[in-house]
Amino acid sequence: MKAFQDYYSEDLSHCYGCGRLNEHGLQIKSYWDGEESVVKFLPNERYIAIPGFVYGGLLASLIDCHSTGTAAAAKYRAEGREMDTLPALRYVTASLKVDFLAPTPMGVELELRGKVIELKEKKVIVESKVLADNKICATGLVVAVRMPETMLKK
Amino acid sequence: MKAFQDYYSEDLSHCYGCGRLNEHGLQIKSYWDGEESVVKFLPNERYIAIPGFVYGGLLASLIDCHSTGTAAAAKYRAEGREMDTLPALRYVTASLKVDFLAPTPMGVELELRGKVIELKEKKVIVESKVLADNKICATGLVVAVRMPETMLKK
Repeated sequence: MKAFQDYYSEDLSHCYGCGRLNEHGLQIKSYWDGEESVVKFLPNERYIAIPGFVYGGLLASLIDCHSTGTAAAAKYRAEGREMDTLPALRYVTASLKVDFLAPTPMGVELELRGKVIELKEKKVIVESKVLADNKICATGLVVAVRMPETMLKK
Repeated sequence: MKAFQDYYSEDLSHCYGCGRLNEHGLQIKSYWDGEESVVKFLPNERYIAIPGFVYGGLLASLIDCHSTGTAAAAKYRAEGREMDTLPALRYVTASLKVDFLAPTPMGVELELRGKVIELKEKKVIVESKVLADNKICATGLVVAVRMPETMLKK
């Protein structure tokens, strides 16, 4: 099964968070699980906040890329199209909000679950949660907007 | 002049964003500039979103660590104490909001400027902006809370 990010064109696959061609990046992979989108991710030990806990900026990054990926996948789905069909639908983040509810333990595979709460022509809002050992550690809210043609063509 | 982060104790200096002992991390350095706090940072090329532009998750990380550092520095200053005096005041992020206003160009030294907009006993709110070539690319709002003693001692 291909991840949302596997459909991104080569020039859009260098992102530190989700680009499959960024060898130093996080290379997250998002999939549908019914109405929710899911990423599983085991943080490398460099991404610590204080010993034993995951860095909040990493969680923000995971939420960011998972949400823009979910936005694209949701819009394709709403249009009844596969993610490799044209015109390409890619999203950038207009705003990102993360609430850190509990320290996130290191050494545990994290699960991010996203849910589209608003889908308009050029804007998708995605709500998400980060779970460690089935406990919610953080929640996210991302407003994703269609990538301008000028950026797509760059 | 020592940066805010240079005052952090060794066990709190492994953070990916601001720990001076995290050799893989960003190692940001924040300083006062009058009533504002400032970080200058030139992103490594791995932190790209799409070619030519900086990754939003990196900006979120810079805002996050600069704001918690600013929170600590502001509270010490309010108490008329140096940052290396006890009891130690360290902050964690309760919530982080980033608005991305314009694509942030790569290859430019970024300037983050933070400002304390609320300072209470256990909570500090820091507003910030990210500038590239003197243009605001993103703004941040961080609610920082005093690190619980249980985490400080871990």
